[in-house]
Amino acid sequence: MIRVAVVGFGYWGPNLVRNAIANDDLELVVVADIDKDKLSRCNRLYPSVPTSIDIEEVITEKSIDAIIIATPVHTHFNLCKLSLEAGKHVLVEKPFASSSIECLELVTLAEAKNLTIMVDHTFLYSPAVQVIKEKIQSGEIGKLTYFDSTRINLGLFQNDVNVIWDLAPHDLSILFAITQKIPCRVLANGKSHEGEQENIAYMTLQYDDDFIAHFHFSWISPVKVRRTFIGGNQKMIVYDDVEPTEKVKIYDSNYKVLESKEQQKEKLYEYRIGDIHVPKIRNSEPLAAVMRDFSHSIRNRSEPVSNSKIGLNVIKVIEAAQVSIELGGAAVEVDLL
Amino acid sequence: MIRVAVVGFGYWGPNLVRNAIANDDLELVVVADIDKDKLSRCNRLYPSVPTSIDIEEVITEKSIDAIIIATPVHTHFNLCKLSLEAGKHVLVEKPFASSSIECLELVTLAEAKNLTIMVDHTFLYSPAVQVIKEKIQSGEIGKLTYFDSTRINLGLFQNDVNVIWDLAPHDLSILFAITQKIPCRVLANGKSHEGEQENIAYMTLQYDDDFIAHFHFSWISPVKVRRTFIGGNQKMIVYDDVEPTEKVKIYDSNYKVLESKEQQKEKLYEYRIGDIHVPKIRNSEPLAAVMRDFSHSIRNRSEPVSNSKIGLNVIKVIEAAQVSIELGGAAVEVDLL
Amino acid sequence: MIRVAVVGFGYWGPNLVRNAIANDDLELVVVADIDKDKLSRCNRLYPSVPTSIDIEEVITEKSIDAIIIATPVHTHFNLCKLSLEAGKHVLVEKPFASSSIECLELVTLAEAKNLTIMVDHTFLYSPAVQVIKEKIQSGEIGKLTYFDSTRINLGLFQNDVNVIWDLAPHDLSILFAITQKIPCRVLANGKSHEGEQENIAYMTLQYDDDFIAHFHFSWISPVKVRRTFIGGNQKMIVYDDVEPTEKVKIYDSNYKVLESKEQQKEKLYEYRIGDIHVPKIRNSEPLAAVMRDFSHSIRNRSEPVSNSKIGLNVIKVIEAAQVSIELGGAAVEVDLL
Amino acid sequence: MIRVAVVGFGYWGPNLVRNAIANDDLELVVVADIDKDKLSRCNRLYPSVPTSIDIEEVITEKSIDAIIIATPVHTHFNLCKLSLEAGKHVLVEKPFASSSIECLELVTLAEAKNLTIMVDHTFLYSPAVQVIKEKIQSGEIGKLTYFDSTRINLGLFQNDVNVIWDLAPHDLSILFAITQKIPCRVLANGKSHEGEQENIAYMTLQYDDDFIAHFHFSWISPVKVRRTFIGGNQKMIVYDDVEPTEKVKIYDSNYKVLESKEQQKEKLYEYRIGDIHVPKIRNSEPLAAVMRDFSHSIRNRSEPVSNSKIGLNVIKVIEAAQVSIELGGAAVEVDLL
Repeated sequence: MIRVAVVGFGYWGPNLVRNAIANDDLELVVVADIDKDKLSRCNRLYPSVPTSIDIEEVITEKSIDAIIIATPVHTHFNLCKLSLEAGKHVLVEKPFASSSIECLELVTLAEAKNLTIMVDHTFLYSPAVQVIKEKIQSGEIGKLTYFDSTRINLGLFQNDVNVIWDLAPHDLSILFAITQKIPCRVLANGKSHEGEQENIAYMTLQYDDDFIAHFHFSWISPVKVRRTFIGGNQKMIVYDDVEPTEKVKIYDSNYKVLESKEQQKEKLYEYRIGDIHVPKIRNSEPLAAVMRDFSHSIRNRSEPVSNSKIGLNVIKVIEAAQVSIELGGAAVEVDLL
Repeated sequence: MIRVAVVGFGYWGPNLVRNAIANDDLELVVVADIDKDKLSRCNRLYPSVPTSIDIEEVITEKSIDAIIIATPVHTHFNLCKLSLEAGKHVLVEKPFASSSIECLELVTLAEAKNLTIMVDHTFLYSPAVQVIKEKIQSGEIGKLTYFDSTRINLGLFQNDVNVIWDLAPHDLSILFAITQKIPCRVLANGKSHEGEQENIAYMTLQYDDDFIAHFHFSWISPVKVRRTFIGGNQKMIVYDDVEPTEKVKIYDSNYKVLESKEQQKEKLYEYRIGDIHVPKIRNSEPLAAVMRDFSHSIRNRSEPVSNSKIGLNVIKVIEAAQVSIELGGAAVEVDLL
Repeated sequence: MIRVAVVGFGYWGPNLVRNAIANDDLELVVVADIDKDKLSRCNRLYPSVPTSIDIEEVITEKSIDAIIIATPVHTHFNLCKLSLEAGKHVLVEKPFASSSIECLELVTLAEAKNLTIMVDHTFLYSPAVQVIKEKIQSGEIGKLTYFDSTRINLGLFQNDVNVIWDLAPHDLSILFAITQKIPCRVLANGKSHEGEQENIAYMTLQYDDDFIAHFHFSWISPVKVRRTFIGGNQKMIVYDDVEPTEKVKIYDSNYKVLESKEQQKEKLYEYRIGDIHVPKIRNSEPLAAVMRDFSHSIRNRSEPVSNSKIGLNVIKVIEAAQVSIELGGAAVEVDLL
Repeated sequence: MIRVAVVGFGYWGPNLVRNAIANDDLELVVVADIDKDKLSRCNRLYPSVPTSIDIEEVITEKSIDAIIIATPVHTHFNLCKLSLEAGKHVLVEKPFASSSIECLELVTLAEAKNLTIMVDHTFLYSPAVQVIKEKIQSGEIGKLTYFDSTRINLGLFQNDVNVIWDLAPHDLSILFAITQKIPCRVLANGKSHEGEQENIAYMTLQYDDDFIAHFHFSWISPVKVRRTFIGGNQKMIVYDDVEPTEKVKIYDSNYKVLESKEQQKEKLYEYRIGDIHVPKIRNSEPLAAVMRDFSHSIRNRSEPVSNSKIGLNVIKVIEAAQVSIELGGAAVEVDLL
């Protein structure tokens, strides 16, 4: 059994605790938080799990193998670093850290110490994203042409981060997990209508080929939309996360160029509207798969699906987007791993 | 009766002919086209309407008051100019002309000659857009915060123009008609996956306040979407042109800032999810209203709703978008009327 | 070429004329109607087609091979009979005639004279219904368990017939065409809220096995629904005729019985929620296929898809439904062909 | 404080326990069940709540004021009777009991002892149903013309009851709560495709005026539908319980009769398609309101919304429906309270 501690019992911590307990490879030995009230809540919900108010003590405790961190973002770097230095494997909530430079230091440290550091991009373990990934990797979709994601709602305004920091980690991690493509430039526009933080933003990723990725984020939409279009030159995918039963639709639709002798100057296009296939999506909890991948990665010294490279690349793109907004939408180069 | 000629009997011409005939203020005296086959088709459909293969003769014919032009875009400038010089009022298909410089010359000429030149942005006369315009102008929506439009489909690729030239005139004319706001910069990204012309593009309009407008155009989407979100600080509108019966929904949803003494550093936001109102949209043909506005404008020497200023501004933005795409997405200043 | 006359140029007649003209096997020689205004309209729309105000003369005209009848229902019997007696093949609008006894006489007469009499149940020729029929006949759906159809709208009240006479011919003809099953009893309930005619009605068809068919018809629904569920013991079909692009969905969903030794008294059921397949539905005009089937049937002395047996069975069920409503919903035996 | 016991800790019991604890007027003194495992589960979830395996002892315990019963249906009668005889108020899960005769005995006993007996038709306390009820009672909808409910799914087959017993209590209780109308006859058809119990059924309620109610229940539908249409002569309501945000839509649509002198024999109808109003539905737990109504009813000796009369009428209709199915769909008289 891998002995783990969960650090942070706020919004997401209880889900991690529940799934850590349910995982047969993990033994949850302690839950730590600096807030007594949160520990009391943990005691009520899980009377048998010990709690501690001393996070540092927990992290450095010899008998513990791995630390699961679900604290506010600005604390990620210090807690991850402390954990790695103490020789612990780490699973940390998304976003990875507050800056790419922090992420890079953690990635480097983890490599030097041969430890797993994994970011909890939960969506990568959702059955819908896994089906999409399989379809793309099998070649069924063909060469990818675009990725277009809309994640909007009348949402929870945050004071400390803008809508890109809040929502982009979901879509960027999905983009990186299902394509093998590396963007080279980021362009973003956004506006804040209350306070300082942008509550609506658009982001484009440019690539060095004809692929393009675009994102629409908003906290001020009257309706909730979580929809991604993925174009390929064979088929196209619509992933609608709000749909209860038909989350992923695969369209056997496309176009092809007809070469015509008579009209040599003109290309003719033929449209193919074909069948639609709606694969059954299993009903399983993504976070349970996160835990399995974490323990598997520790046991086998293997790379998890939601690896630190994706975590770092997500932060690099978000940083670039923020610079782009400040520059009035100008293209900002990114150098991803 | 205003005596009119229709020039061009291709894709859209028959609709103009039908509506010109039906309009009580207009007398359709001739349909002109350089293509005999198209004139034969006109003869079959409307045996009583004279036809002519000599466009120039028709335009300069003394007894004719107004010319309705539905020819390919690259001919708009010459035919409009000829018509204005001959002292005729003009209704020309969108887009206005091939460049803003052409549009400006036509606008100047029409003013000098005190003639109406009107662009057939048909959407401005659709009952749905008129309802939206009324709601905004009445103040019900409050101060506008954003305009977000998606117009995508597995569409008719064109060889001579890109997806922005094809689709943006619809959304830009709507934007200009329902808001009184003037954008100052245009940013666009696009990709072509076959041929030279972009088949997917994103465009942002920046304003000198906190309003933002964004557009998504595509010919390579597996599903047809024609949806516009319009945010206000009182209410929000969703305009879904694909919906058969519920095209316009007005959401009494919003947020407000709660000032809290105790947490002086933090703003608190309260979300209001309210009723939705789906106004009945009349079922009337927009093109009939275009004809009425054209004849009314001629009779009363008044500005039509779809005036040449909107037509020119649409072209200015499209030109800027094309420059922006060529510059890799950089912001391009626009100086609209 | 089969020489045909169209009798009746009211609501549906123009569509029949247009499709008769377009059919290469048919030569439309005359359009007849007792209403001069309707004939004038025909002259305007189709100047080259002769018209006649003397229906009887047209029907008995020697050189004509077939009569297409689109007059009010109460005239169907006399005009069909006259046509058959004159040795003409007949295509008659649905519903076949005003009573089953009339239908039976026409069927018998046509058989005796070896003439085609075909009822224009246009829906049977719609691409969607044809796909459904193929799926069922191939065995893919398995043994049919139920047919459930809802056809409701805020509709055109009629003074002379109730909502069952108005709407049931569509659904009943589809039912008869896609299943080979014969119902044995009809039960119906309905209410009229204005005038004498029921504007809402429910109809059940009982069979001598475990199949059941049910119909909901209404002119007083706030929304338009045209949806049919077809259950099979392998797969299930949803046919939604209001859907623009996804009219037919085939659900690979079902259940099976698990026999359990331990709980001998209880059956256990396992649910299978599987993939959904949305076949592409061709975009073709059903009425063109009606014409092709009519001419093919005449040429080859073969039974058309929408044969007189279906036409008669539809009327038998509607008659029984009306009796059932009058009897307060009691089961009424039907003896279908 | 009203001292209550919850009897039965199976599927629904935990929800009752949670809501009883949360209610300020109720003091949950014990949870009883004959199944040790269920009590252990209760101990884990609510360590502070005493449990007992002796249901009879709990029911007859002097210090307890009210019993909440969530045991299998066939035990309802005995446990309710025991409770009433012991002078306790009762809240019992729906359906009320296994037969109307049992219900009637319980109603009579409760009246004689001046005790509350309330059936947990939870739906009556859902914010959506309350909005609908208000709209009808305010007169906004006008005179009711029909109630049409569809509750279908690929559902949990049950061995001991058919689909009507399983699903009809929801829709019948809603019908009785929102209308003041009493049906006089019940007609039903159903089929079983596995085992003995009908898995698909249709039910019609006849009234002595022009109102009609109809129900479609199924466990063998490929899609989940929970939709009720309610017609009025002023407005119409669509209640779609599957919709996440737009559960209730009020259509300002209708028709009126135009009296025409010229066509004295014909009535002319004018259709009015008007605005749609989607009222905001509060997000509150219906079961909390059930508990409040139960305690309020006990304190004030008043009739709860979900009173025993509705509970009894529901059972009377279901019994009649079952008889009707056995009689092949014949009308069965009902004599409701």
